[in-house]
Amino acid sequence: MVKIVGIGGSLRPNSSSYKALNLAIQRVEALGADVEILDLRQMKLPFCDGGDEYPDYPDVARLQDTVKKADGLILSTPEYHGGVSGVLKNALDLMGFEHLSGKVTGLISVLGGQSNSNALNDMRLIVRWVHGWVIPEQVAIAQSWKAFDEEGKLLDEKLSQRFDQLAQSLVDNTQKLRDAA
Amino acid sequence: MVKIVGIGGSLRPNSSSYKALNLAIQRVEALGADVEILDLRQMKLPFCDGGDEYPDYPDVARLQDTVKKADGLILSTPEYHGGVSGVLKNALDLMGFEHLSGKVTGLISVLGGQSNSNALNDMRLIVRWVHGWVIPEQVAIAQSWKAFDEEGKLLDEKLSQRFDQLAQSLVDNTQKLRDAA
Amino acid sequence: MVKIVGIGGSLRPNSSSYKALNLAIQRVEALGADVEILDLRQMKLPFCDGGDEYPDYPDVARLQDTVKKADGLILSTPEYHGGVSGVLKNALDLMGFEHLSGKVTGLISVLGGQSNSNALNDMRLIVRWVHGWVIPEQVAIAQSWKAFDEEGKLLDEKLSQRFDQLAQSLVDNTQKLRDAA
Amino acid sequence: MVKIVGIGGSLRPNSSSYKALNLAIQRVEALGADVEILDLRQMKLPFCDGGDEYPDYPDVARLQDTVKKADGLILSTPEYHGGVSGVLKNALDLMGFEHLSGKVTGLISVLGGQSNSNALNDMRLIVRWVHGWVIPEQVAIAQSWKAFDEEGKLLDEKLSQRFDQLAQSLVDNTQKLRDAA
Repeated sequence: MVKIVGIGGSLRPNSSSYKALNLAIQRVEALGADVEILDLRQMKLPFCDGGDEYPDYPDVARLQDTVKKADGLILSTPEYHGGVSGVLKNALDLMGFEHLSGKVTGLISVLGGQSNSNALNDMRLIVRWVHGWVIPEQVAIAQSWKAFDEEGKLLDEKLSQRFDQLAQSLVDNTQKLRDAA
Repeated sequence: MVKIVGIGGSLRPNSSSYKALNLAIQRVEALGADVEILDLRQMKLPFCDGGDEYPDYPDVARLQDTVKKADGLILSTPEYHGGVSGVLKNALDLMGFEHLSGKVTGLISVLGGQSNSNALNDMRLIVRWVHGWVIPEQVAIAQSWKAFDEEGKLLDEKLSQRFDQLAQSLVDNTQKLRDAA
Repeated sequence: MVKIVGIGGSLRPNSSSYKALNLAIQRVEALGADVEILDLRQMKLPFCDGGDEYPDYPDVARLQDTVKKADGLILSTPEYHGGVSGVLKNALDLMGFEHLSGKVTGLISVLGGQSNSNALNDMRLIVRWVHGWVIPEQVAIAQSWKAFDEEGKLLDEKLSQRFDQLAQSLVDNTQKLRDAA
Repeated sequence: MVKIVGIGGSLRPNSSSYKALNLAIQRVEALGADVEILDLRQMKLPFCDGGDEYPDYPDVARLQDTVKKADGLILSTPEYHGGVSGVLKNALDLMGFEHLSGKVTGLISVLGGQSNSNALNDMRLIVRWVHGWVIPEQVAIAQSWKAFDEEGKLLDEKLSQRFDQLAQSLVDNTQKLRDAA
């Protein structure tokens, strides 16, 4: 059984990134994966200063250890200013190769306006940089403010299918890539 | 006379990004520009939560106002995990079109290893997203730990000339683009 | 009076990229610019082999000379496989710094599906690489097969306004940046 | 046994991209893969016009069929103007999802000057767009004119090891990902 950890790049209470992340994690779990969400809204992380020691922030070690023990990741970010959120990039900056290398990763972005891939591209290149895998399937949610109903369900069936594909690919390929790794 | 504001994307005490930023700002000042550095190491900024109100953080307003009044910017970032630092991206996320639009921007990145353009590319696309200008001249400092002497001077003459070109282009073209704007 | 040259990255007879390019060039002309379109569908260009000599292809020299004499450019490409078309990239590869450096450039992409910025990002980084300027205003035309009427007019008024903004910015800022350059 | 096909993005007779591609293919073959190189210098391909029919160019079908039957790919390109060569992009434009989807891909770029990742990033995003996999290991060869000896061997031992890692990862992970696919 593979372990998949989700991280969202928003700090908004009613964040669409976390709605999307929750959906994806539920589907991954339904496929038999062990799952955990690291909710940055409930963690106390510092800005990365390029060093390795954050004694005042035990959540740094929690972030690092949880990711290190995972087989795969789901990263979900709002696209801010045509890129990954600083919040998510900073969380990734707080980790190193020893935590991130080899993880199999699925990517989600949410946008207030029309569809775009910049934040997805950013995450793809960042995860590669730390020697992680990124699955081809990815999801961008345009006009995210009208994408979900009140219970956090996606209103667009086609978009919902893309979540199924992302979840299926992530679980299947994490098993393949992590097998005997 | 144009006003150029510098922002560095590192929180390290002995940061190469700030050494590079200081150099660039000095040269811009020598060309007659009015200059100011916003040192993120001495400002208290929150993580961006997607909202506009940060009453507990007066430095957000200082960041926004200083940038808004500027004609041009110099952004200098370490390349972390093959991208702009989360620290700098977050600072940019805390500002909006009303602060950043129309600014003329010069870009610098510093790297621990060999040369690369990812963080420069990130910044170029981000600044464009908020309708800023980015000058063609840019500088990546590879192996930055051995690029400066103890007084913060660049050891490589050719690299030093690239700073001259960046400074000259930034001042000249900010004057042209902001003229009657 | 500035001279603006348009190049399209498609070879299709009924290309939306050229419809979009024609529109943009018309508006630039209406603002007083001298204009010319290099229609790659009617030029005979070779694949770039990394060299400088293409004696069998006089259109290489025509491409180079026309661009060299221009003050500004409009590049319009279909987004193929999430990037600039090979056709357009090859045409740019056939030119060097001596032809492209310092040109002020406006960017357009057309897409069969939903909106995206990859091809625009590609062109922005390529033009920068050869020391050209790229204006912040850019246009992506999603679902381009239904964007134009039979006379090549845009059906969406808001999109049409983005062409006006692109044309205005290109003419104004080419004048500013090329002035005394 | 997996089948790996190599494609180079240069048309130069003495191309460093093909030297690098040959090296990588040799190592992949030594690991037990079935290999084939599609040498674009010896194929007659048209510019992609967005259509599917190229009756005058039988090499289009050869390109498509050979790639379709492969399990994995190695793409090797010169970085021209800070991006993938138009030659390689055009070859990829001539193929579709039915040929490229699901392939596991390793990436190489060669540069005349210092190291950079732009062309590698371009290829990563393009391959993803057509639903291919890209392995994390990749190689950029800086100052490629002095990287090889007269027999096409790499002079730098560390760089040579990166080819080993690329080859090993490509063969291992193609087996894992294509297993039962």
